[in-house]
Amino acid sequence: MRVYLDNNATTMVDPEAFEAMKPFFCEKYGNPNSLHKFGSETHPALRNALDQLYVGINAKDSDDIIVTSCATESNNWVIKGIYFDKIANGKRKRVVTTAVEHPAIRMTCEFLKQFGVQITIVDVNEEGIITPDQLREVMGEDVALVSVMYANNETGMIFPIKELASVAHEYGALFHTDAVQAFGKIPINVRDLDVDFMSFSAHKFHGPKGVGGLYIKDSQALSSLLHGGEHMGGRRSGTLDVAGIVGMGKALELANKFMSFENSHVKRLRDKLEDALLSLPDVSVVGRRENRVPNTILASIKGVEGEAMLWDLNRAGIAASTGSACASETLESNPIMEAIGADKELAHTALRLSLSRFNTEEEIDYAIEQIKKAVERLRGISSTFAYTPEGHVSGL
Amino acid sequence: MRVYLDNNATTMVDPEAFEAMKPFFCEKYGNPNSLHKFGSETHPALRNALDQLYVGINAKDSDDIIVTSCATESNNWVIKGIYFDKIANGKRKRVVTTAVEHPAIRMTCEFLKQFGVQITIVDVNEEGIITPDQLREVMGEDVALVSVMYANNETGMIFPIKELASVAHEYGALFHTDAVQAFGKIPINVRDLDVDFMSFSAHKFHGPKGVGGLYIKDSQALSSLLHGGEHMGGRRSGTLDVAGIVGMGKALELANKFMSFENSHVKRLRDKLEDALLSLPDVSVVGRRENRVPNTILASIKGVEGEAMLWDLNRAGIAASTGSACASETLESNPIMEAIGADKELAHTALRLSLSRFNTEEEIDYAIEQIKKAVERLRGISSTFAYTPEGHVSGL
Ligand SMILES: Cc1ncc(COP(=O)(O)O)c(C=O)c1O
Ligand SMILES: Cc1ncc(COP(=O)(O)O)c(C=O)c1O
Repeated sequence: MRVYLDNNATTMVDPEAFEAMKPFFCEKYGNPNSLHKFGSETHPALRNALDQLYVGINAKDSDDIIVTSCATESNNWVIKGIYFDKIANGKRKRVVTTAVEHPAIRMTCEFLKQFGVQITIVDVNEEGIITPDQLREVMGEDVALVSVMYANNETGMIFPIKELASVAHEYGALFHTDAVQAFGKIPINVRDLDVDFMSFSAHKFHGPKGVGGLYIKDSQALSSLLHGGEHMGGRRSGTLDVAGIVGMGKALELANKFMSFENSHVKRLRDKLEDALLSLPDVSVVGRRENRVPNTILASIKGVEGEAMLWDLNRAGIAASTGSACASETLESNPIMEAIGADKELAHTALRLSLSRFNTEEEIDYAIEQIKKAVERLRGISSTFAYTPEGHVSGL
Repeated sequence: MRVYLDNNATTMVDPEAFEAMKPFFCEKYGNPNSLHKFGSETHPALRNALDQLYVGINAKDSDDIIVTSCATESNNWVIKGIYFDKIANGKRKRVVTTAVEHPAIRMTCEFLKQFGVQITIVDVNEEGIITPDQLREVMGEDVALVSVMYANNETGMIFPIKELASVAHEYGALFHTDAVQAFGKIPINVRDLDVDFMSFSAHKFHGPKGVGGLYIKDSQALSSLLHGGEHMGGRRSGTLDVAGIVGMGKALELANKFMSFENSHVKRLRDKLEDALLSLPDVSVVGRRENRVPNTILASIKGVEGEAMLWDLNRAGIAASTGSACASETLESNPIMEAIGADKELAHTALRLSLSRFNTEEEIDYAIEQIKKAVERLRGISSTFAYTPEGHVSGL
């Protein structure tokens, strides 16, 4: 059996979204900016896809939703745009963000330090989020931008974006949220959240890889990251990836169509899996369920190194993660576990399971069985952690 | 009949390239950076695609070929990377480029002026290119980067990149070429050209839209445009678009396989079409054939406004352009015609025809017939230009 439980890393393209994309490779391949039929015959599908995006997040016509190549681009765009617009020649020099943002935020901020950007990194609390009060403590009139993710990729914890945006605005700062892990999991309403900018990536909600977007409230100014022609109203140049845009629009429509399914069926399967994990001795899960997206579990299994667990599961055909896919090649400890104050050993025992609407009950039952087997086997031979039911002793 | 003669704007994905991409949407959808089978099963195809790119342009293993979302990204990356690396805090403040670069170069330079970048724009000669002597005249020790396109998108004229790169290097400057319009049309040999950076875009050589690349000689330093995780050796973050990369690799392999076909069959059809155009009175074509990519014609048809011509052809099922697709929405005169010194009226009569290996003799014969018809009709009713066989009188 093949069971894919790594949907926070990337997802399968919904076959219906792929169906919608297909004509735009070898048949309707014209450049939408061209004046002839080969160009204009792509317009209805493009317009439809953009409508799906606007409706999908409750954006107004006066807002911009600009298609990018991924959330990494969107995140870089916001930070660097604000750098050029506000920081390089302006008075506000500071960006406030959290300790658990995606590297596309953290590394971009880090890079800009040498060019005069000041960075304030707010640590998350034991729940893995930051509160409006925590944000208020570090705010000031020198803050140009606050950037806080909507849901964390490893824990699934949901941040109080509406309240955080409001605090940022009190101080005259702009507010950006990286909503990559919220899309398709909880309803997105940009107008209610009142954020200035929001990043998303299609491949995290059953759309294709290589396409994402940036929501820009009231089409406000933000220097381009990709300068050039007049694509996307002059805001993001580059020939439009028609197939990708069509796939992303369809994927968002489907995600919203399946939203209640996600929060019933998927949540139930996730809870079942989580309950089974928690029924094992010395297993804990990060963050309260009520405050998490419905598909994610970040567990810590004492005495079982995350990497070893992955390999056992992989042999059984099950895909999981020790944290974000970005970090997994390096075999490092899970950074968010460290951020929420877990000790180093615990951080090495992280196991992330992230479901999707394509997972079945049968798959979850199989995964439970295989995880139990693996825990037993690995605790038996544990060399990194000498596991005893009462706790664990390091260093053996 | 549908005849697509706008291949410099974008191309049909080669069905063979699309075939290669297909499994990576709904079947092999894993994140290549993941440790499990869903991730690793994408590796052979990814490696193969990268090999196809390296072989396809004769890059060395010690070089980097970094996948981006398009040439616009690659172009922005080089200019902005050099800005941060050399110009912002360094001594060399100048970028030298040409008057006929793609907006992704021109507008990026323009944007950076306010941040202290000095720009020197070299005008093209009547052939539509710049010569090494022209470049030498404006060089100095204050130049950080020279950026010159390999082939022009509107005229198809090929620039002497090897010689130009050599002049730049004499002055200790780096050299970038936007090779978008050369890929698939003439053999690319980066080692022979000895350029530092080279941009390309898959959809211009029968690969998919939304994916391109940047060649970086000897993996030399260049600050990232997309900061983040460790994708692409830490140089360009963002989850890899596996399908897109596979499609681009295959497309380049196919382009090289068909290179002699391009320079025989496609060239012959292009020449046939061009000869037919030139057989009409008061038609001229920009640039010597020997110095042009084999698929492109930029003609000026006195008394016939480019836009009007496009509409007539469009009605007949033929896709052409008045210049770059980027500009075509604005109904402006063709900028390169102005750059090479054509008067304003002539610039309004530009017609670009760009072929591909998918065009047939029958299509070209049909196009010739329809163009002749359109010229006759439009010269008959010309209101913008009062056409008489001896010349044209403006303003009627
Ligand atoms: C929270 C978050 N932000 C941004 C990204 C980056 O998305 P992409 O790789 O599509 O650019 C990811 C995924 O890795 C993510 O989980
Ligand atoms: C010479 C040249 N450079 C760059 C580009 C930009 O390519 P893309 O739109 O794929 O980024 C184009 C195509 O419009 C081009 O013709």
